Amino acid sequence: MYEGAVQDLIDELGRLPGIGPKSAQRIAFHLLQTDSDDVTRLVTALTEVKARVRFCEQCGNVAEADRCRICADPRRDQTSICVVEEPKDVVAIERTREFRGTYHVLGGAISPIDGIGPDDLRVRELMTRLASGEVQEVIIATDPNLEGEATATYLSRLLRDVGLTVTRLASGLPVGGDLEYADEVTLGRAFEGRRRVDA
Amino acid sequence: MYEGAVQDLIDELGRLPGIGPKSAQRIAFHLLQTDSDDVTRLVTALTEVKARVRFCEQCGNVAEADRCRICADPRRDQTSICVVEEPKDVVAIERTREFRGTYHVLGGAISPIDGIGPDDLRVRELMTRLASGEVQEVIIATDPNLEGEATATYLSRLLRDVGLTVTRLASGLPVGGDLEYADEVTLGRAFEGRRRVDA
Repeated sequence: MYEGAVQDLIDELGRLPGIGPKSAQRIAFHLLQTDSDDVTRLVTALTEVKARVRFCEQCGNVAEADRCRICADPRRDQTSICVVEEPKDVVAIERTREFRGTYHVLGGAISPIDGIGPDDLRVRELMTRLASGEVQEVIIATDPNLEGEATATYLSRLLRDVGLTVTRLASGLPVGGDLEYADEVTLGRAFEGRRRVDA
Repeated sequence: MYEGAVQDLIDELGRLPGIGPKSAQRIAFHLLQTDSDDVTRLVTALTEVKARVRFCEQCGNVAEADRCRICADPRRDQTSICVVEEPKDVVAIERTREFRGTYHVLGGAISPIDGIGPDDLRVRELMTRLASGEVQEVIIATDPNLEGEATATYLSRLLRDVGLTVTRLASGLPVGGDLEYADEVTLGRAFEGRRRVDA
């Protein structure tokens, strides 16, 4: 509907995840009316990301060198590996400041409906890391949904005979929430995982 | 939280309208994992828009020459001007194929709360166009909301003594809707604007 360049930009923006035709149009007009410097900064950021960012050869997290900042940090405990689905999960866990080990990013979760099996994830790379014998604990931190649970079950079976501690993040009531608003599955898990109170 | 280039991209994407931090992160990771060609196409589209697109010197619509495609089209009726707020409104009206005149894009609507008055819109340019004496009808097609109505009222007063036909798009029930779900104001307008049925 628009003239050449505007329509091209709307089309390209509309290909991005979560951006429909209306949002694409809104962003295109914003960019048209905005300062040229802002657009230049966005163009530079896009170009730089493709030029500089790759994936850590050890854990699969985003990195600007062969290894990511966490794997390259000598203060991180290399005997403990937290397995997550995506780089954004690493950021979420880092924000808690609870974990001082390293990560392993699978690059997704097992989902037969989307045709994603264990071979499509970085499972082989995980097994290679474990083969060194240095690792003592694997913490499975996949998402608490159907695909994440399937992945966690698959991994825990695979790791059963490797002879190391395998744990899974606790499910239960979210802190700050209302018990009456918790769904049945979460409440059921909270019961199942109840812990003795040390008075 | 992320390493340099990824965080820079997330920050730049987060500046776009309607894109929050979570969407920015999602788009950044999509672009990281996507084919380099897709990113190149997006970069080209962004650069081209800033290089090639400007605003029509006559109507204020987006254009890739001094005049937009509509103003430059000799088949369009130059005696009828439809006044809209934004270029996207031009596209919406063009889609109806009901109007064969030209447009005038104000670049927004009067909104005292946002500090936007008539001088911030392309009202003076509209008056200059009307001064040629060629125009016979002005159709005010601002949005049917508070700001659009205020702009329509302002314009209709301004044009009262110019000696041409000034009309406003009809308000009423949306076609295909249910009467019982119409809000009171719309239903009221539909009554007010009721038309005699020619049997």
